[in-house]
Amino acid sequence: MNVLFTFKIKDHQLEALTNDFPDIQFSFTKDLANEPIAQYEVIVTYGEDITSEVLDRATALKWLMVASAGVEKMPLAEIAERGIVMSNVRGIHKTPMAESVLAHILSEGRALPVLHAQQKRKEWNMKVRQTELRSSTALILGPGAIGSEIGRLLQAFGVETIGCNRSGASADFMDKTVQFNELLSVLPHADFVISVLPSTSATRGLLNESHFAAMKNTAMFMNFGRGDLVKESILVDALSNGEIRHAVLDVFEQEPLPAESKLWALDNVTISPHVSSHSGKYVERALEFFTRNLVKWQQGDRELLNIIEPKRGY
Amino acid sequence: MNVLFTFKIKDHQLEALTNDFPDIQFSFTKDLANEPIAQYEVIVTYGEDITSEVLDRATALKWLMVASAGVEKMPLAEIAERGIVMSNVRGIHKTPMAESVLAHILSEGRALPVLHAQQKRKEWNMKVRQTELRSSTALILGPGAIGSEIGRLLQAFGVETIGCNRSGASADFMDKTVQFNELLSVLPHADFVISVLPSTSATRGLLNESHFAAMKNTAMFMNFGRGDLVKESILVDALSNGEIRHAVLDVFEQEPLPAESKLWALDNVTISPHVSSHSGKYVERALEFFTRNLVKWQQGDRELLNIIEPKRGY
Repeated sequence: MNVLFTFKIKDHQLEALTNDFPDIQFSFTKDLANEPIAQYEVIVTYGEDITSEVLDRATALKWLMVASAGVEKMPLAEIAERGIVMSNVRGIHKTPMAESVLAHILSEGRALPVLHAQQKRKEWNMKVRQTELRSSTALILGPGAIGSEIGRLLQAFGVETIGCNRSGASADFMDKTVQFNELLSVLPHADFVISVLPSTSATRGLLNESHFAAMKNTAMFMNFGRGDLVKESILVDALSNGEIRHAVLDVFEQEPLPAESKLWALDNVTISPHVSSHSGKYVERALEFFTRNLVKWQQGDRELLNIIEPKRGY
Repeated sequence: MNVLFTFKIKDHQLEALTNDFPDIQFSFTKDLANEPIAQYEVIVTYGEDITSEVLDRATALKWLMVASAGVEKMPLAEIAERGIVMSNVRGIHKTPMAESVLAHILSEGRALPVLHAQQKRKEWNMKVRQTELRSSTALILGPGAIGSEIGRLLQAFGVETIGCNRSGASADFMDKTVQFNELLSVLPHADFVISVLPSTSATRGLLNESHFAAMKNTAMFMNFGRGDLVKESILVDALSNGEIRHAVLDVFEQEPLPAESKLWALDNVTISPHVSSHSGKYVERALEFFTRNLVKWQQGDRELLNIIEPKRGY
């Protein structure tokens, strides 16, 4: 069996693959368009190089392993038509994102930025305001795969977790779940308001002035979902007026965040340039998804993990 | 029953006490030496104000509630002689310390100091080296109450934990435990080497050049125990020569860290001025210990939590 990768992996990763799957020939190309590809049963790709023309030539192709979370730009209709099995790495972002959220929460709580600033001045000062995460309350907007992973870690720290979604349906690692329209009643209880919501008609502009007014003055607001959840001007006002203590933003109405944005200069904002899902272990994780499925594939099992229905696109 | 506090608590904390214990009279003083104290059955103190003279006048005293972890400076012989029950808040530091350790680990892993520096320059740069904590390995020197709490949190993040103590006896939240004399064989496996060891004859100078040479070049060394675990010069050399990636130090051979220490200027060191156990919630936590015991005391139960045997001092 022949497998073609359209991205590089490390030597030790290839070695592990060849050891674990001695019957399989693994090949690599960066230029799918100019490669003879009729012999490959499996193509492992980030997705963007799969065109109708490629599919025409990939006459033996039976499984497309997409090492990314979204497939919306791929020729899904043709893939469906040809009966090609497609799987992705859905869930790969939850670990780095949840670690980022906890990193920011703990770093602020334990005053790490203050310690770093003192160190630069060679200043030994033990009078640093620090608190504990334990026994606080977090409201998680969007308790799906990523939100639940954040909830799981927060619960390990002894944090009460409240999930908030459209239906109010219960979610993993949430002590309770409420609906979007109950937001105003739960916001006053939250020490952390964390959004990982996608951009949909139900979430765009979901938060307005009244929501920030309802938050604790000591609350930390974290947006790791999409920037259109709240207008930047509303956020700037809430932060300037002390309606909340701090905001950590990984997403913005406009990205890159324009140089003239008032957010840059506020001292109670942390700007993360949409990198919370990035990870040096991405390829390693993607290969874990791949090899688990490759074992199944060799056994003739076509019920792969993270299978994508090309007609639906998810 | 009369209870005397020798430190202040907040109004809402006193209100909660008075509500929960309506039969008890709570009094407060900052000047035990000049206070009539013959009527108090219980004294709640940080410990340093309890002298033989105070004990002489505290003729009704039956329980000393010490809101600190150490009691070595108190007149233990007299306390034992008078049959006074003594309890402390052993374990109160484990939450803030474990949160500090995780804060530093996650902050480095998710490149928060880099993000903060970029923000100051109003720089939107997504090319930031970040990794994942998941699937790494941590070696915890001193897996007692604090070390095990660190281990519990690390395990929640999917980290393999190896405890290391004198006997090699198994410890909570450690996947395995080794003895001090096996250190050199486990150090090459650890991404994080975290010490919370006290200063004893077995731990002073425990780590020398060979231990740092045995660590991964990518390892992070964290000392949250006592500064005499390793000579500062050995640490400076290991950091300068790239034998380890980074050190986070909360304790030092000499504290405050002298201005002339080379540690201040190394860019792969984080200096925390012995504050990892500090917490804005300290009094709140101490009162939790106190009230749990006060319930027992009222019921005539003298088997208090965190009881101290004054003759032994722990």
